[in-house]
Amino acid sequence: MVMAEITNIRSPRAKAARRLVKRAFRDRDRAFLAEGPQAVREALAVEGATVELFATTEARTRHADIVGAAAAAGVPVHRASGEVMAELTQTVTPQGIVAVCRFVHVPLAEAVPSGARLVAVLAHVRDPGNAGTVLRTADAAGADAVVFSGASVDPYNGKCVRASAGSLFHLPVATGAPVAEAVRQVREAGLRVLAADGAGTRTLDDADLSRPTAWVFGNEAWGLPAELLDLADEVVRVPIYGRAESLNLATAAGVCLYASARVQRQTLHAVEEPTTRRG
Amino acid sequence: MVMAEITNIRSPRAKAARRLVKRAFRDRDRAFLAEGPQAVREALAVEGATVELFATTEARTRHADIVGAAAAAGVPVHRASGEVMAELTQTVTPQGIVAVCRFVHVPLAEAVPSGARLVAVLAHVRDPGNAGTVLRTADAAGADAVVFSGASVDPYNGKCVRASAGSLFHLPVATGAPVAEAVRQVREAGLRVLAADGAGTRTLDDADLSRPTAWVFGNEAWGLPAELLDLADEVVRVPIYGRAESLNLATAAGVCLYASARVQRQTLHAVEEPTTRRG
Repeated sequence: MVMAEITNIRSPRAKAARRLVKRAFRDRDRAFLAEGPQAVREALAVEGATVELFATTEARTRHADIVGAAAAAGVPVHRASGEVMAELTQTVTPQGIVAVCRFVHVPLAEAVPSGARLVAVLAHVRDPGNAGTVLRTADAAGADAVVFSGASVDPYNGKCVRASAGSLFHLPVATGAPVAEAVRQVREAGLRVLAADGAGTRTLDDADLSRPTAWVFGNEAWGLPAELLDLADEVVRVPIYGRAESLNLATAAGVCLYASARVQRQTLHAVEEPTTRRG
Repeated sequence: MVMAEITNIRSPRAKAARRLVKRAFRDRDRAFLAEGPQAVREALAVEGATVELFATTEARTRHADIVGAAAAAGVPVHRASGEVMAELTQTVTPQGIVAVCRFVHVPLAEAVPSGARLVAVLAHVRDPGNAGTVLRTADAAGADAVVFSGASVDPYNGKCVRASAGSLFHLPVATGAPVAEAVRQVREAGLRVLAADGAGTRTLDDADLSRPTAWVFGNEAWGLPAELLDLADEVVRVPIYGRAESLNLATAAGVCLYASARVQRQTLHAVEEPTTRRG
């Protein structure tokens, strides 16, 4: 089906997509924008996640694989002019393709099933770039889920979606629960709750990371409030060996999540090895 | 000494400071801007680094400690209006204080003395936020130096200075050398050269991190070029356990640098322990 190119941002279809840059409209429509070929590919890989695509003529040619995948999934691909694309995207150098996606988050209890071994809980993380980077890192470290809790940024914020580099579509994400509720839930699922904070008496190298763990990461500027530190089973700090006062939130999260992944895998191997040798 | 408030950005003093937002003028004057109370404090702690300060009346009151430190060091503090301050700073919510600083980098050979145990080499890292974050993380991990090499961003770029959160003033930084020259120098200083790249055959957990190490981190988008991978003693990848394609550069650097710091400290303790026990 050949569709006419949308050249006017006031066309109903373009207008309905464009307003999704605002949270109020995202929440109303339960939909968001994912821009760039990587994010669009990941969106199409999740059944039912993609409502429609907008692509420039050039992008349609360059990303024939995406157009093909959309066709196979019955997702309409609208041709859009460069001007319309510029209105639908937020990057300085737009890549000519953007998807309108349905919300992909799941209820908290579903995101953190019993048996989960590694979960990241964002508590009042306000910077969308940081939040998206933690989501990407949690995915890379093999985490089972990421929880956006308390006054954390909307996971569907454009900058967060971009920083997640597709990971928003890879692992269960829950959003909207108060931090205390998130902590209760992960603990019920059998996870030990470690709060990452410079106030920790135990360092990452001394903490017991072998058990299923939920890491709680706090706000960029003021860390974790006292009542939240009290909720945790242990407060753990990344050791500072030099003169820096602290680490960037996303970096600290990366160091913690990878430390857990390493120790959990070593522990699993240590348990499994005898069996393997016997075999 | 009471100085008149600078209310016009075209005043010679304000104009001379303001043009330092551009690299060409920074290179000509061998000077740069460090904004916010934290950066200014760190600048004043380095002897001879600070040329002058600009502060709003409100910031002078709020940061009396800084004004006192400047006076003790013989650094002039100019009063500036809110309008002038907005021109001298780049953050959305300027904190009312900015320092004009002399270049603080050192020659490559001086930055990486023999005996160094942990060094970060940025190879063609273009994003100033990423570069500054790696600098901050290297400082936190106890690195001996950071080398900005190849076509990497200017360490004095305002966004890089801000992301470094004061670490630019904490450890030796070298800049301007070609990557091959930086690699030659760190190797001459006795360091093993590990290139961090997704193409590595060995993972971080399997690599020998006990020896003095220089990590080479590449460009955000295209990683490290083949000729650079060839220069390294080993190419090491951070393992990806989930479905993320890769890690954000600054996060990957944090995981690598902290892995080195942990293993080097364990190795040192293992060597030192018998002596301690004997004592």
